Amino acid sequence: MHLRLITKVLGLLLMVFSLSMLPSVLVSFIYNDGIHDAFILGFLITLFTGFAIWIPVRHHQADLRTRDGFVITVLFWVVLGLAGSIPITLAPAATETFTDSFFESFSGLTTTGATVITGLDELPKSLLFYRQQLQWMGGMGIIVLAVAVLPMLGIGGMQLYRAETPGPMKDAKLTPRIAETAKALWYIYFSLTLVCTLAYWAAGMTLFDAISHSFSTVAIGGFSTHDASIGYFDSPAIELIAVVFMILSAANFGLHFVAWRSRSVKHYLLDPEYRTFLMIVAGLSVMTIGLLVFTRTYDPVTSVRYGLFEAVSILTTTGFGTADFALWPLFGPFMLILASFVGGCAASTAGGIKVIRSMLLMKQGLREIKRLIHPNGVFPLKVGKRPVGDRVIEAVWGFFSMYILVYALILFGLLATGMDFPTSWSAVAASLNNLGPGLGSVAAHYGAIPDTAKWLLCIAMLLGRLEVFTLLVLFSPQFWRS
Amino acid sequence: MHLRLITKVLGLLLMVFSLSMLPSVLVSFIYNDGIHDAFILGFLITLFTGFAIWIPVRHHQADLRTRDGFVITVLFWVVLGLAGSIPITLAPAATETFTDSFFESFSGLTTTGATVITGLDELPKSLLFYRQQLQWMGGMGIIVLAVAVLPMLGIGGMQLYRAETPGPMKDAKLTPRIAETAKALWYIYFSLTLVCTLAYWAAGMTLFDAISHSFSTVAIGGFSTHDASIGYFDSPAIELIAVVFMILSAANFGLHFVAWRSRSVKHYLLDPEYRTFLMIVAGLSVMTIGLLVFTRTYDPVTSVRYGLFEAVSILTTTGFGTADFALWPLFGPFMLILASFVGGCAASTAGGIKVIRSMLLMKQGLREIKRLIHPNGVFPLKVGKRPVGDRVIEAVWGFFSMYILVYALILFGLLATGMDFPTSWSAVAASLNNLGPGLGSVAAHYGAIPDTAKWLLCIAMLLGRLEVFTLLVLFSPQFWRS
Ligand SMILES: [K+]
Ligand SMILES: [K+]
Repeated sequence: MHLRLITKVLGLLLMVFSLSMLPSVLVSFIYNDGIHDAFILGFLITLFTGFAIWIPVRHHQADLRTRDGFVITVLFWVVLGLAGSIPITLAPAATETFTDSFFESFSGLTTTGATVITGLDELPKSLLFYRQQLQWMGGMGIIVLAVAVLPMLGIGGMQLYRAETPGPMKDAKLTPRIAETAKALWYIYFSLTLVCTLAYWAAGMTLFDAISHSFSTVAIGGFSTHDASIGYFDSPAIELIAVVFMILSAANFGLHFVAWRSRSVKHYLLDPEYRTFLMIVAGLSVMTIGLLVFTRTYDPVTSVRYGLFEAVSILTTTGFGTADFALWPLFGPFMLILASFVGGCAASTAGGIKVIRSMLLMKQGLREIKRLIHPNGVFPLKVGKRPVGDRVIEAVWGFFSMYILVYALILFGLLATGMDFPTSWSAVAASLNNLGPGLGSVAAHYGAIPDTAKWLLCIAMLLGRLEVFTLLVLFSPQFWRS
Repeated sequence: MHLRLITKVLGLLLMVFSLSMLPSVLVSFIYNDGIHDAFILGFLITLFTGFAIWIPVRHHQADLRTRDGFVITVLFWVVLGLAGSIPITLAPAATETFTDSFFESFSGLTTTGATVITGLDELPKSLLFYRQQLQWMGGMGIIVLAVAVLPMLGIGGMQLYRAETPGPMKDAKLTPRIAETAKALWYIYFSLTLVCTLAYWAAGMTLFDAISHSFSTVAIGGFSTHDASIGYFDSPAIELIAVVFMILSAANFGLHFVAWRSRSVKHYLLDPEYRTFLMIVAGLSVMTIGLLVFTRTYDPVTSVRYGLFEAVSILTTTGFGTADFALWPLFGPFMLILASFVGGCAASTAGGIKVIRSMLLMKQGLREIKRLIHPNGVFPLKVGKRPVGDRVIEAVWGFFSMYILVYALILFGLLATGMDFPTSWSAVAASLNNLGPGLGSVAAHYGAIPDTAKWLLCIAMLLGRLEVFTLLVLFSPQFWRS
């Protein structure tokens, strides 16, 4: 463990992160909302904390190793989550307790999008902007981690992507590759956001709302500047734009990179994971719309409109809302929350188990049936035309079982606070899958649940964002030995 | 597929099964409860149906193959479940619809123990006896299937037991082995039941209740002759006897066989699966008692008494009750229902995923953490001192994922009938794990839920009893080819 190196990286991260509070100072002056001090103070506290951490170890040189990667990845979210909560704590009338401030910041940064704040429409513009920007930065962090760091760590079968990701990836050192890959991903991420902003603006949002919502769309975050979320605009055009960009943002950003470099969209349709994702989108939308039509919840046209939007929003784990899906009849709410366990593609800003892992689990289950019928047959498991090694499949199974285990444990914790079952099971799913909205008492916001529950859900968000194992590894005694 | 041979086996099975209705005729005469006709008629219908099926193919000779084994195993439960429902349908005032009669019979035979009948205390004695006996026969069938048939079929990693089970097991033909193994198991099963009966009788039950409850204890069935279940007797001695025999019946019957042959109990403590099971029993009991003490639900002594009983009853998937655990506070009901997913040991009368599979899943999950830390390390997976092949682990994962998949699908179905969430999720768990009692509207009995839901739950019971794959295989087109 290179403790000094880790400290140095964190110090640098904090100093860079402190800059993210400056745009809100500008927004505060533009709209004259009177809370610029919160961001200026937040900027100074974060900057100087980072500087104080960095200065004693600034001359330390060493190569980052895999083991350091685990620690930095975990601290990245926790420390930036803490720093992000500073302006929210300082801003008057946003949240009342530190728990709420941290929950809001962490939910933003992890792109979960669960909020404890009600009355968004009356909130100072700069604070609204800041929340949206937290999600946007979190999304960027996820992609860099997912494309550049996690495959290297070998989390949950993601070594699968080692050979495919852009750049020379087989080296054991982290640093040079991250910088190079991050730059390419940054361009793609920024371009997607820009196009999304222009589209929202053209469809009738104010420029402020267009920027804000493009941030939380591309990050698959789900924060909004209105309590009614996307439903506030009541515009089929805006909803369609959101649907398109949610579907785009749920793609593997390595795939965006390949498509961009070759100036061709055919890669999207050739990629087995994205193809499967699109089929799941289609299937879930049809089922949702069918349910709404069949139960006469809405007229057919409205069913298509709301059904498509909510299916895409929940499956991709965005969590935007146009209709209150928690109140839909029969198995509607259960089906959608369950779909969020699948989530989007690996190395996207989406949460959940990810499409590629779900595919592998399903394929292996079906292979077992074949094996029962032909006990001596050989059935290699393939993704597209590429065979997948047993080692990868075992890692995916390990991931899956730990995912379910932590789900159950946190659910225990929530029930222990006295929360009811529908609220608890959906809240854990919505946090672990980085989805946001749940059912029951957390359908609209998370303000009314006990503080203990909020902290447990923060752990769930972190576990989800860290693909479970990155955090679990740190609790293993072997990790700390030599 | 040897269709004629399958028909012949089923015809024989029905003729043998018809005899099971005769003891109830005797009971009906002893207690003069006036419903002997139902059993005489049931006996005749079943006997002649079996005879009519058997007679055209009685001279057919062929060796049973693996593929026939799947079909016979599935038909075994469905056909005997149907036959078992005849006397229940014919008996006046027991059930009102065929759905209810079949549900009761099938729930009995699969040792699920979910009942649609209320007012058990007023039911004719012969019908009560018949229900208990259904469970006892079902339990016998499960053990023969689990020890002799399923390892051969290679369901869900159970090829693990192929080498360990008594008798020459490596042959591909089923018939001689079943007969030989079944005889040994029969002696053990009968002895356990006899000792259990005597213990209950000595502790104060009537002989009728002692026999009836020993049937459903050893079969891990959970049917009772009283609405209040074991709670009716309000006797710590009886509860302790039930706990001991539930724990014994949840052991692998192959283990009983080894222990019996060598006249030594040390095998129980040396067996890795049974040892783990005992640790889970201890852990769950402590947690349950702790919860009851901590929440002041009962005084400490009563907490120990009820906590231990319910923990053992639910974990082993027996489903006897002394207290209404569905109303216990916080996460108590959730924890117990979740524990029933683990269930008892393989090749016992218990339901659930089974301890050995849960162990393998957990071990593999932990191995993934080791592998993340030491990517090039070799970590063989062992049960006791025996290494477990990757092929077995893959089969167990396949089993696990299909278990969860069918759980979710049937839960969808139940929610679609309009049932509420706590009732639905617990009902599916209680049926798939062959447990019996659930939460919400199915805490006491299953009489009040829609007919569609009852049929869906029968499918869940069948899937649970058949270790999921035996049934799923039949839906695979490849199975029916050549
Ligand atoms: K989200
Ligand atoms: K049972």
